[in-house]
Amino acid sequence: MNLKRIFILTLFLGLLTPEISLAQSKATWIWYPGDFEIYLSNKMQNRRTERGSFFPPFWKLDSHYPLIDFHKNFDLKQAEDVDLFVEGQYNVKIDGKAISGYPKRIRIPAGKHKLSLKVFNNASPPSIFVQGKTVVSDDTWLVTFEDKEWIDESGKASDQSGTTWLNAGSWNFNAAATPPSKFSLATTPQSAVNVVKNGKSMLIDFGKETFGFIKLHGLNGKGNVNIYYGESKEEALATETCETLDYLEVNNSQKRDSTLDLTKAFRYVNVQYDGNISVDSVSMLYEYLPVVEKGGFRCSDEEINKIYDVAKYTFHLNTREFLIDGIKRDRWIWSGDANQSYLMNYYLYFDSPSVTRTLAALRGKDPVTSHINTIMDYTFYWFIGIYDYYLYTGDKSFIQTYYPRMQSLMEYCLSRRNKNGLMEGLAGDWVFIDWAEGLSKKGEVSVEQVLFARSLEAMALSAEIAKDNAGAARYKALAADLKTKIFANYWNEQKQALVHSRVDGKQTENVTRYANMFGIFFDYFTDQQKLGVKQNVLLNDKIQKITTPYMRFYELEALCAMGEQPYVLKEMKDYWGGMLKLGATSFWEEYNPSKKGVEHYAMYGRPFGKSLCHAWGASPLYLLGKYYLGVKPTSAGYNTYSIEPVLGGLKWMEGSVPTPNGKISLYCSTNQIKVKADEGTGALKIKSKTKPTVKGAAVRSIGNNLYEIQINKGKEYQIKYQAL
Amino acid sequence: MNLKRIFILTLFLGLLTPEISLAQSKATWIWYPGDFEIYLSNKMQNRRTERGSFFPPFWKLDSHYPLIDFHKNFDLKQAEDVDLFVEGQYNVKIDGKAISGYPKRIRIPAGKHKLSLKVFNNASPPSIFVQGKTVVSDDTWLVTFEDKEWIDESGKASDQSGTTWLNAGSWNFNAAATPPSKFSLATTPQSAVNVVKNGKSMLIDFGKETFGFIKLHGLNGKGNVNIYYGESKEEALATETCETLDYLEVNNSQKRDSTLDLTKAFRYVNVQYDGNISVDSVSMLYEYLPVVEKGGFRCSDEEINKIYDVAKYTFHLNTREFLIDGIKRDRWIWSGDANQSYLMNYYLYFDSPSVTRTLAALRGKDPVTSHINTIMDYTFYWFIGIYDYYLYTGDKSFIQTYYPRMQSLMEYCLSRRNKNGLMEGLAGDWVFIDWAEGLSKKGEVSVEQVLFARSLEAMALSAEIAKDNAGAARYKALAADLKTKIFANYWNEQKQALVHSRVDGKQTENVTRYANMFGIFFDYFTDQQKLGVKQNVLLNDKIQKITTPYMRFYELEALCAMGEQPYVLKEMKDYWGGMLKLGATSFWEEYNPSKKGVEHYAMYGRPFGKSLCHAWGASPLYLLGKYYLGVKPTSAGYNTYSIEPVLGGLKWMEGSVPTPNGKISLYCSTNQIKVKADEGTGALKIKSKTKPTVKGAAVRSIGNNLYEIQINKGKEYQIKYQAL
Repeated sequence: MNLKRIFILTLFLGLLTPEISLAQSKATWIWYPGDFEIYLSNKMQNRRTERGSFFPPFWKLDSHYPLIDFHKNFDLKQAEDVDLFVEGQYNVKIDGKAISGYPKRIRIPAGKHKLSLKVFNNASPPSIFVQGKTVVSDDTWLVTFEDKEWIDESGKASDQSGTTWLNAGSWNFNAAATPPSKFSLATTPQSAVNVVKNGKSMLIDFGKETFGFIKLHGLNGKGNVNIYYGESKEEALATETCETLDYLEVNNSQKRDSTLDLTKAFRYVNVQYDGNISVDSVSMLYEYLPVVEKGGFRCSDEEINKIYDVAKYTFHLNTREFLIDGIKRDRWIWSGDANQSYLMNYYLYFDSPSVTRTLAALRGKDPVTSHINTIMDYTFYWFIGIYDYYLYTGDKSFIQTYYPRMQSLMEYCLSRRNKNGLMEGLAGDWVFIDWAEGLSKKGEVSVEQVLFARSLEAMALSAEIAKDNAGAARYKALAADLKTKIFANYWNEQKQALVHSRVDGKQTENVTRYANMFGIFFDYFTDQQKLGVKQNVLLNDKIQKITTPYMRFYELEALCAMGEQPYVLKEMKDYWGGMLKLGATSFWEEYNPSKKGVEHYAMYGRPFGKSLCHAWGASPLYLLGKYYLGVKPTSAGYNTYSIEPVLGGLKWMEGSVPTPNGKISLYCSTNQIKVKADEGTGALKIKSKTKPTVKGAAVRSIGNNLYEIQINKGKEYQIKYQAL
Repeated sequence: MNLKRIFILTLFLGLLTPEISLAQSKATWIWYPGDFEIYLSNKMQNRRTERGSFFPPFWKLDSHYPLIDFHKNFDLKQAEDVDLFVEGQYNVKIDGKAISGYPKRIRIPAGKHKLSLKVFNNASPPSIFVQGKTVVSDDTWLVTFEDKEWIDESGKASDQSGTTWLNAGSWNFNAAATPPSKFSLATTPQSAVNVVKNGKSMLIDFGKETFGFIKLHGLNGKGNVNIYYGESKEEALATETCETLDYLEVNNSQKRDSTLDLTKAFRYVNVQYDGNISVDSVSMLYEYLPVVEKGGFRCSDEEINKIYDVAKYTFHLNTREFLIDGIKRDRWIWSGDANQSYLMNYYLYFDSPSVTRTLAALRGKDPVTSHINTIMDYTFYWFIGIYDYYLYTGDKSFIQTYYPRMQSLMEYCLSRRNKNGLMEGLAGDWVFIDWAEGLSKKGEVSVEQVLFARSLEAMALSAEIAKDNAGAARYKALAADLKTKIFANYWNEQKQALVHSRVDGKQTENVTRYANMFGIFFDYFTDQQKLGVKQNVLLNDKIQKITTPYMRFYELEALCAMGEQPYVLKEMKDYWGGMLKLGATSFWEEYNPSKKGVEHYAMYGRPFGKSLCHAWGASPLYLLGKYYLGVKPTSAGYNTYSIEPVLGGLKWMEGSVPTPNGKISLYCSTNQIKVKADEGTGALKIKSKTKPTVKGAAVRSIGNNLYEIQINKGKEYQIKYQAL
């Protein structure tokens, strides 16, 4: 055979069987869906300390399933060698026949074959990484914890037996050498910006709120080193009341560098040491989740730009193994906090795994024994988070996998309705709503019913995706019935608002913002009711004010939804700008402008109890993207979307909003709008004194100085208009 | 103060506060009930291999809860130092106030105090060992996995919130240095009784069935060592078909002793090695659970004595971390097998922890997704096992702790009844009954309903103990209703028997032994029905014979209950004696006298598939104790009991039956009976031609040559009588 013949033969084979010339398929570590997330969240949530004491969560933590069966059917054009990496004890079967021992490489013959691995691991989730040329582990593999009888090895029986096979869970563990149990966030060294030495102590300032491992350089001698952390200088210096600290016993006979075991949140670190101890310097390893900023925002107002940047930093610090509440204190996954993080994420990172990891960790496993985080409203935010996740990403896989766990959690809720069919706190339920003085949780609180109704709507949508038609009809009917009850029970015609609660079957007199603001952007009100609520509640100073950025998120969203962007812009500058004026380098858990000095740092009855870097403080990310740039999906995954830019007093703004496979970029001044979108079909809505002009697109008047232009993907639109 | 005054003061204090002079209280490691059992059973059940391949169970395995709160309230006369040993990350609180760090010794002040520890451990069950003078960890501590909201630290709130606090689980981990995660069985070296060397192989005979780690002495050189295990010589020599083996790669530059990692069951070991390898000798480490023989049996028939001894050895080999099926193959916890082990245990070890460990491991956790071991009948045996446990031991604590898990498993069963209210195999259910050729599992099988009825009775009893009166009434009604259905649906007046099944609502013609034998000793039949069943089923050769010791257990029990001890004695000698004549050193999974030679070793289509050491082969332990010595409890925990000795053809017998706090000893010949009991009140029933005579007790005639003597504890009774 000469060279030419080989070439021709290769070419010929190449045409007939293109697979041969394909690059190696991409393998990733896989596991039972949710199990790695439960495992990792257990690790993360059990790292909280309070003044040196371990401070774990106070709700049920679940475990991974210790024994998992993985399989996939392959049809190979030619035999291939497949490398196996497994976390746990395992066996390997080809077509149901076990291979002796713990093989690291197997050969699968050409043809149709079923490859199965069964893995036991008590300590961390059973996981596999399978790497052949075409045979690779990924989320197309099926997994089961064997909820039902295994009948035989043919693969058919498993379906007959009712065994639940789910698609495997995965993330980004794309290297055999870095299995799930070895997960850690990225780190990078950072130096102090200022150090004040004072005898046997050092006060180190890292210049801004940060997070990571403190590193002591040139540590020498025998004795104690006490490290006091502060989000503020005052906290670091308050050795008796600072929230976090480390006590070290040192016994070094020569200089050594020591990195502490546990991460902490701080800007300032106060290092105090015994007479015999010396320390050359202190630095840190900054710890973070590598995520890509896909969205952005810039405008004519530098204060707003600064707010946006600090919000981004605040959000990044809280985007970690999971979307957590705050970096100093809890570092736990709180469903209500997380729900806002999901929304912010859609406008900054569009990082779906951060959302699904968090949803999975929050849900844990059956049986349901209490509300998520023990909080009734937090259970509802979990459902609402799924609704939004599908709307923004169009990804059905989470719902398909989690639908049974959604059902069991919803059954838990339905079984706890009172005799009026409403949710009311029972023994063991925490009705949270918000940190607000004197807020009543008694009886049937209206906002809980509103959130419950939205949860039922999320179930109806999810039931359709999971092809449970009977379920969809049932949840729809339940949602409709509950909405009827909400208006019958809480709407007060005189007050033009939903009242706060019913106690013993009677409306209370109190009106709060909560149910009313959700009612606006859930679109539960008539237009007239909306106007009534806006005037009588949202813009009414006599209604109790909200002091947490948590509920300000929804309050400002409701105002934006009612076209109050100029008002909200001013609020943003006052509230978030107010924190910046106090030197904030990240946004806080709570901010009350009427407080002074160190009063700002107190909360929960402790002088430094407040978190100065709280995810829910970052809401301008969401508000600016959704209600100023004005971009939001109108069908799942931005298949269709609307763009309704509102300057709200800004001279110009520009930015981009990420979509599943690209982004929507926008520039808007008072007379020009530029738009480009990578996918989907958009409806650009413009308020203009005159009919806008644009090349290559039709401008449709939709009345009331409002015009609509259809945005097709891939094309840049330049529109001239005159802002009203 | 002079010495005399000190003495008087000490005496005085001693009288006033006797606690001071008490010896140090006894501490033990504690955990959330069931969690250590789940953890250990996962480890044990995942040690099965089949020809070198890992062979895990094919049902859901659960995990321990990773985060547990432990607490107890103490009232201390004086302050004391308390040492803390913890498996996991933990915090310690006195009266709700956390102590910084991970303290190893704390001081609790005098007075009333609540001591709490909260422990996180993903890898093994959170466990604590607390050792002060009076403050010690034991099963009076309360534990929770925080199924409900934790409200505050006062201890009161937990009750209001509905948090479930259970008594801690414990076993015998009474030393701080040996925590639960370090559990291992005991081992002792054993030598071979015969070695045949043949070139580069050795066939080692350990003289009888045994279990443990093979140890290779003076192993040297580079190459492969293959070890083939055999319960029979034939199996060890059958390198292609033996059930278990080890392949070792050796690379020793000098002689070394190597103990293998995994235990195996064997009598013979065939060690084959490469040309470069040398081995001086082979021994073993016998591995076992240390348990005390509290019961015993000896009689005039040496073959029966030998059967009893081999049954004891068989049972001891299978009494391990848990009561397992057999030592060679599965080493799993099978509920049906275990139920017989419980009963044998009551007549040999009376080791309650072995029963409760096994029940706990079998039950695992909610949610219930399939029957125990996937087998419908095995779920029922779990309930029945609890019924018997309470009857024999009088211990309510298992039921008190497990009642919620009993309820959820029973709800699972009740939800799976068919439209006729009967249990019928659904998708995913394995209807096992017995290994028997052609046995139909179709439709509504009668024996399943009989076992289900008994399970409902167990629930009714347990509901009373758990003070669930409504539940007790409900389960009683359900049991009564089901028993009515059983007779309406299955009793055939003509055949004088329960038929095997109903298919499509119609009685089948087939009669099998199963439902009928349970009906006898569950006392579901009238006396006349019992006689009919005995003649037409049990003693009828035309009814399909039972070939497993498993169902022979119940068959022979039914015959004994009908007074057929002479027949059963002959059956024992034929069946168990038959195995002994074939050289058995332990009793088998199945024995069919009609088979020849190596045919005896085959099962499941594999030449050595049969287990030659199966717990269910040890049933003579139970039969001889309960139906020959004739001792059984008539109320919980031997508060009352009956002794009805039946020689069944033996000239004499003697033995003892353990009770919760002692034993009942008995000697019986044809004209003399001696009895002594350590507790309870017994009713000795004697069949005698003439009225028996006894010193110091009344003899009551109860008709039909039957006499009764009341046995009081602590006294030895010598009775003269004339056996009928």
